[in-house]
Amino acid sequence: MTIDSRPVFSKVALIGIGLIGSSMAHAIKRGGLAAHVAGYANDPGTLEKARAIGFADSLHDTLQLAVRDADLVVLATPVGAFGALAKEMAPDLKRGAILSDVGSVKTAVVRDVGPFVPDHVHLIPAHPIAGTEQSGPEAGFAELFDGRWCILTPPPGVDAHALDTLKTFWQRMGSQVEIMDPKHHDLVLAITSHVPHLIAYNIVGTAADLETVTESEVIKYSAGGFRDFTRIAASDPTMWRDVFLNNREAVLEMLTRFNEDLNLLQRAIRWGDGDMLFNLFTRTRAIRRSIIDAGQDSAEPNFGRAKKKP
Amino acid sequence: MTIDSRPVFSKVALIGIGLIGSSMAHAIKRGGLAAHVAGYANDPGTLEKARAIGFADSLHDTLQLAVRDADLVVLATPVGAFGALAKEMAPDLKRGAILSDVGSVKTAVVRDVGPFVPDHVHLIPAHPIAGTEQSGPEAGFAELFDGRWCILTPPPGVDAHALDTLKTFWQRMGSQVEIMDPKHHDLVLAITSHVPHLIAYNIVGTAADLETVTESEVIKYSAGGFRDFTRIAASDPTMWRDVFLNNREAVLEMLTRFNEDLNLLQRAIRWGDGDMLFNLFTRTRAIRRSIIDAGQDSAEPNFGRAKKKP
Repeated sequence: MTIDSRPVFSKVALIGIGLIGSSMAHAIKRGGLAAHVAGYANDPGTLEKARAIGFADSLHDTLQLAVRDADLVVLATPVGAFGALAKEMAPDLKRGAILSDVGSVKTAVVRDVGPFVPDHVHLIPAHPIAGTEQSGPEAGFAELFDGRWCILTPPPGVDAHALDTLKTFWQRMGSQVEIMDPKHHDLVLAITSHVPHLIAYNIVGTAADLETVTESEVIKYSAGGFRDFTRIAASDPTMWRDVFLNNREAVLEMLTRFNEDLNLLQRAIRWGDGDMLFNLFTRTRAIRRSIIDAGQDSAEPNFGRAKKKP
Repeated sequence: MTIDSRPVFSKVALIGIGLIGSSMAHAIKRGGLAAHVAGYANDPGTLEKARAIGFADSLHDTLQLAVRDADLVVLATPVGAFGALAKEMAPDLKRGAILSDVGSVKTAVVRDVGPFVPDHVHLIPAHPIAGTEQSGPEAGFAELFDGRWCILTPPPGVDAHALDTLKTFWQRMGSQVEIMDPKHHDLVLAITSHVPHLIAYNIVGTAADLETVTESEVIKYSAGGFRDFTRIAASDPTMWRDVFLNNREAVLEMLTRFNEDLNLLQRAIRWGDGDMLFNLFTRTRAIRRSIIDAGQDSAEPNFGRAKKKP
């Protein structure tokens, strides 16, 4: 096998240069995947930070200049902004360009962006399953996508060459690529990402609002498990608001399942059903092992958090 | 300030040598805190592993020999076994010895162990807020307690010298020490540890039982947040069964709060109340920062999980 080192695109436009957009810029540079990386942000402070770090060849506060001549345009803002952005950039998209995104929901992207996509542009939504709790252009790093999955949800009748090109792009970004129906994507992500975030946000809120236990106690004794949830609950508020508003049905369905199961556990605790608890706690251990075997998490205890005093 | 390097105890008996017991043995050796560390386990395989690692000066399958002449005896098995162990060892406890534990619940320890403690022995329950998802004698390491809190819940009228000695011991194990009422301890830990574990176990169970999303999909796309929960849900099943059976009231109370708050969030998603979601998600971010500032977690993104492909 020879490693391909030719650029996949002449110009990639990243519309949004926060954690994901800036990580893409770094990974594109690392892999030599584009001759030119253009970045767009509407906030001058974000552009300033991006300029100082230097991960883009050009930075823009107007969409028109950012997307001009780009072979790949990637929406990388919170998903609530996608529709308006697509509408505004549509007249300036290059003939034959691929319009993609990195949003955590996919049916809403087809719904919001689809109507504005010119016939001569290939819409191929995408979702790299990668991230950290940090945000902003300074949070990005080239390795973010390594070993993670990127899900593409091409519409029926998608141009085969465009799909193949985007697939190659993400593979050379370090990812494994999967093709999926957008509706199924939203169901899968509801359980593997959206509901986990929701309950993490929720328990951190519950803990903060107690009158019998102080916030200072919650913080001091967080190493008992709570601290893990605060990492997820520190994720970007705008991004996550938009996820929940745009994946309503799937999140509510998965939340219903979660609640049913939690009611059973609550009852087991109330009635002292130790066997029921023990059996569940034994089953869940096996899933952790599968995730480690699949290369999707570190096998080190505590995620490899420093063993030494922080 | 001079660092005290004299042993705190002549002999410490660790009744249970899993993750916590073996970590204590390593930390005692590191700090020179006891001339002799005795370990007890009822499982021959556990004793064999402990012997191979070599963290104890003596290993026993009978309580009598393990606790004989010990100045400090520490119950470090799942809490459900404490009562029977205390009853059996009571006649062999040294006059003036401290009997302590490392259980995650404290009123149940007073209830189960208290009746068997001879008048000439000082019962001082303790709970080091530290651990990993691993278990067994091979999982222990000396740094586990560094920078973490250890909560002591001495009974009214406790011997001041004994309390002071145990406090010094835990400080020299690397911990910060707090004194607390057992009932309050159980309430604090219900929210900072027990309910977080319960909902982690629960969502992993929910995800495994879906018919619309396969277990293989859950595993592949776990990096979206789910994988964090599987770490906690990989914790020792027996230990955690006993925690829930022995902290029923506090867990049910905190779970009720959690459910109330989750219902509100569910409603906000159903009705598209983005402001409510955004406000919660912004508040929770601040608590993460406080936990990092308090030295109770790593500031590195993703807990400092390796950035490179695993």
